[in-house]
Amino acid sequence: MSNPLLDDRDLDFQLHAVLGAERLFGLPRFREHTRETAMMYVGSARKLARDKLLPSYRAIDRDPPRLVGGRVTLHPEMKGLFEATRDLGVIAATRPTEVGGQDLPLTYASAAMVYLMAGNGSVLGLLGLTTGAARLIESFGDESLKTRFLHKMYVGEWSGTTALTEPQAGSSLSDVTTRATLASDGGYRVRGSKIFISGGDHDLTENIVHLALARIVGAPAGIKGVSLFAIPRLREEGGALVDNDCTTAGMIHKIGWRGLPSIALELGDRDDCHGWLVGEPNRGISYMFQMMNEARLMVGLNGIATASVAYREALHYARERPQGRALGARDPAAPQVPILEHADVRRMLLRQKAIVEGGLLLLLRCALLSDLADAAEEEPARKLAARLLDLLTPVAKTFPAERGFEANALALQVHGGYGYSSEYLPEAWLRDQKLNSLHEGTTGIQGLDLLGRKVVAGAGQSLLDLRDEIMATIRSAREAGVSADECGRLEGAVAALMTVTTHLGGLGLEGKIEEMLRHSADYLEMFSVVVIGWQWLAQADAATRLLAGSAAKSNPDAAPEATTPEIEALCRGKLCAAQYWAATELPRVGTLAALCLRNDDSYARMQSDWF
Amino acid sequence: MSNPLLDDRDLDFQLHAVLGAERLFGLPRFREHTRETAMMYVGSARKLARDKLLPSYRAIDRDPPRLVGGRVTLHPEMKGLFEATRDLGVIAATRPTEVGGQDLPLTYASAAMVYLMAGNGSVLGLLGLTTGAARLIESFGDESLKTRFLHKMYVGEWSGTTALTEPQAGSSLSDVTTRATLASDGGYRVRGSKIFISGGDHDLTENIVHLALARIVGAPAGIKGVSLFAIPRLREEGGALVDNDCTTAGMIHKIGWRGLPSIALELGDRDDCHGWLVGEPNRGISYMFQMMNEARLMVGLNGIATASVAYREALHYARERPQGRALGARDPAAPQVPILEHADVRRMLLRQKAIVEGGLLLLLRCALLSDLADAAEEEPARKLAARLLDLLTPVAKTFPAERGFEANALALQVHGGYGYSSEYLPEAWLRDQKLNSLHEGTTGIQGLDLLGRKVVAGAGQSLLDLRDEIMATIRSAREAGVSADECGRLEGAVAALMTVTTHLGGLGLEGKIEEMLRHSADYLEMFSVVVIGWQWLAQADAATRLLAGSAAKSNPDAAPEATTPEIEALCRGKLCAAQYWAATELPRVGTLAALCLRNDDSYARMQSDWF
Repeated sequence: MSNPLLDDRDLDFQLHAVLGAERLFGLPRFREHTRETAMMYVGSARKLARDKLLPSYRAIDRDPPRLVGGRVTLHPEMKGLFEATRDLGVIAATRPTEVGGQDLPLTYASAAMVYLMAGNGSVLGLLGLTTGAARLIESFGDESLKTRFLHKMYVGEWSGTTALTEPQAGSSLSDVTTRATLASDGGYRVRGSKIFISGGDHDLTENIVHLALARIVGAPAGIKGVSLFAIPRLREEGGALVDNDCTTAGMIHKIGWRGLPSIALELGDRDDCHGWLVGEPNRGISYMFQMMNEARLMVGLNGIATASVAYREALHYARERPQGRALGARDPAAPQVPILEHADVRRMLLRQKAIVEGGLLLLLRCALLSDLADAAEEEPARKLAARLLDLLTPVAKTFPAERGFEANALALQVHGGYGYSSEYLPEAWLRDQKLNSLHEGTTGIQGLDLLGRKVVAGAGQSLLDLRDEIMATIRSAREAGVSADECGRLEGAVAALMTVTTHLGGLGLEGKIEEMLRHSADYLEMFSVVVIGWQWLAQADAATRLLAGSAAKSNPDAAPEATTPEIEALCRGKLCAAQYWAATELPRVGTLAALCLRNDDSYARMQSDWF
Repeated sequence: MSNPLLDDRDLDFQLHAVLGAERLFGLPRFREHTRETAMMYVGSARKLARDKLLPSYRAIDRDPPRLVGGRVTLHPEMKGLFEATRDLGVIAATRPTEVGGQDLPLTYASAAMVYLMAGNGSVLGLLGLTTGAARLIESFGDESLKTRFLHKMYVGEWSGTTALTEPQAGSSLSDVTTRATLASDGGYRVRGSKIFISGGDHDLTENIVHLALARIVGAPAGIKGVSLFAIPRLREEGGALVDNDCTTAGMIHKIGWRGLPSIALELGDRDDCHGWLVGEPNRGISYMFQMMNEARLMVGLNGIATASVAYREALHYARERPQGRALGARDPAAPQVPILEHADVRRMLLRQKAIVEGGLLLLLRCALLSDLADAAEEEPARKLAARLLDLLTPVAKTFPAERGFEANALALQVHGGYGYSSEYLPEAWLRDQKLNSLHEGTTGIQGLDLLGRKVVAGAGQSLLDLRDEIMATIRSAREAGVSADECGRLEGAVAALMTVTTHLGGLGLEGKIEEMLRHSADYLEMFSVVVIGWQWLAQADAATRLLAGSAAKSNPDAAPEATTPEIEALCRGKLCAAQYWAATELPRVGTLAALCLRNDDSYARMQSDWF
């Protein structure tokens, strides 16, 4: 298999040797499962991703959806892939059995999703959007709404979307103008224009349910007047499905994610678009934000998956492609060497590895925190996990999107001139990746969210919690004998992060909001480097312990044959990548911290006509 | 005009206020020209780029070349654009009138090319490739070769290519296997396979002349056995043009540069491919490298042009697109503001400006050095210019490619979700830009060239020359009253660069070549940050002087009306961008220097099976 999408050994290492995720099965919430049943689910996803999704990826990328006669038609392969993936139970994998779910921890569901996303992000996208929409109904809808929509969505008979964005509003959700009017029958009629609605129309399911933001007539201006509605493309009337006045007004010609259509949606052109209010009036934004945080983790997971499949492709290419000779080799008649032998190619690959595997651990850790926030037995443990998850979400969304894009560009670069051609896939994954810095809150918005909301919430308690977690990893790594230099660098980086946060938080307390947030992009970058540094130290810790264990093993018969050299290789690679991150990235924290503390005002001062 | 491709005021500022390029017209070589005639040429290129090239760019990007019946057909618009651009005299603009040129300084020819490349890089690409091929004949060919090929190429009746790469060799030119056999008629017959031949086939000109590397049968192995041949697609025989056995074996489906075909070329399938030896046998690589250095400057120029047109588009979008409100604005009914008002959008635009305009000055400076290396009256001045140009070439090639790609991604990001759609052009420019880190020597190869060849050549004299140049700028900036902090930071960065170079050069002297070159990518990055810092300090210097001049002007009648506020705005923007570079980028030099000095061995140690 030339492209495994993800290294199976690495996933196992991260889940079990680093995170100890099997402890979840000791919690009542997950008692239906064991590590083995959960990994069986991961294994099915992995197999589907390798056998079906990746092989058809190229054809689907080349032949994007078409809008014909007002309806969207997907690539003919999409229906079979959608159904096969749906039939794994992906949509409701983490939901309780009562609503048709499998009660799986999000940690293992995420592990399965990484493979599926790496195989074809669009297929998983359609299913993930359905999960997100259905969860809003599960969380906030009343029983009649659940009866009407929930089951059909969780089994994937109907799909779902979230319809937030409007042409005039973009990221500014307070400017939503879609209107909902209470009709004489007690229901709502909705009218307005939505744009960038992923999965907003397609030919895979009988019906599509849009979870849309709209203003009830007479509601206050701004975000406090926005409500959430469920709006099916077809509504049930007298036992039949009838047209609910949702028009596909246009299709966005996206540069990637070519299996998944994104449309402009007109609601209520004929004043016959029925909407069902979800939860209470005027609380739509807060409901959406529950979904949004989960959606941001899915974006991060996609970023890692998209970088991983490209990294694996580049690694395979670098092992096979002969070109050039060692530096200083004098014999032109000697055979050429694989390009992996060239230091700069190894640099590009190790950098990709550091981004992909560091980011994957962060995403798995966030999923674990989500599971603990839901299901830990003691309330303090649930609250701690929820705080940490909240704090880490902007990083888990942005790091894979931004550094993943860099990794994808490096994968293309490793392919040389061939990488610039559409005969090879790295260019397609690079296009796919670019979406992740844009959807579900742009990178700029993540920076504002992190610095302006997350680190200052609850008097900064969550950042103190994070520091404690990182310090615990540093202690463990020291105990295991990980390089003192690496431990010391991470400790210094955490201290710098605390200093900067205190300083910027102080500006906020003085009411200097603009100054506080001016360097939110640099702050997010610094924060990410530290958090990924933590993931690498945790992996160095686990790898060092594994290596010491096998070295200490006096009876070689006890070690499973054939796996020992493999695990040793895995651990050696982990140590190199951890060293790389500590040597190359952690020193940047000092530079970024100084920039934030100094609060350089170059772009703050810049005027429109000075550009 | 929503997209001017490049800011005209800025070009004038860089050429004249910063570089004083008009001094070139005092040299005998350029006596046919004045600043006015040269700028008239630039003006014609600018007008063509704006009126014809940019408006048809989208259509050409969408409809790439086709290979039908063994021949390549370009987009129907290409022929008219090629001819209109050719008719400006672009191919031979800098060549002497004796060979049909215009005797223009490369500095001004480059200024014209930036507009043309920003309008459509493929059109200029076809012409620039012809220049490169013809120059090889002009420099190294004998009179009969010149008679046969040169005039027709310089007027653009025939086009040219350079055919270096072969499928099994890639960047490793010593592995070229195309063979040239001396025939009984005293001419050579060539046979072999070439790949990635840009402009290798098309329907714009009557004939195409390939300047190809091949081995004469019996030549030594390696680079010392490679010769240069001129191989026309059609050869003259008995007054007619007959087929010369050059077959278009395939076309690369490139992800950008869609107007310019790149093909696989089979030479001599029927043993009837006549090649004309250029210069002496076995000297092909050294001849090519003369062309290569010029080609690398053209790649850098294209990188700047491609980043510039996207930056200008993003700036226009940010000024027009209303979304959101100021931080802390409480009134949801207040109108939305243009996104340029948001600090993070200004950050993204100022970063693009810093990359584009800093890079442009570097490229114009290199062109000026090339003009001085050719035409300065005193030999020491010519030699100094040649040394500096040689040293700066890898930076001038790579910085625009790598940081330009980042700038292009930011331009897309400024467009939000719209940027992810092919209805908008930033995604196309992003695809175009990616080629620049690959062709004419990948980024990795530029790093090896800079550290392994350029800085150590001539006992490091050129780096000492560069230091002197930068120090002269620092002195001038201090005298003008530019911020002491910015001057000090650049001075410190130069010192760090010298320290690192001395250390790495020392490893080389000890024969530790692998260790010396291990961090060549980081070294190139550090070098680039310093060199662009120099460009920004030079601009801050000139802007400060201009501002002081206008402030001191007691008689307002003396200043040309209407231009004064414009120039003031330009200068204020320059000062902000210079401040940005000094605050954000120069501090990275210390981090990169420490990494090089420490010589971290993470990827050096990494084994294939550890990934």
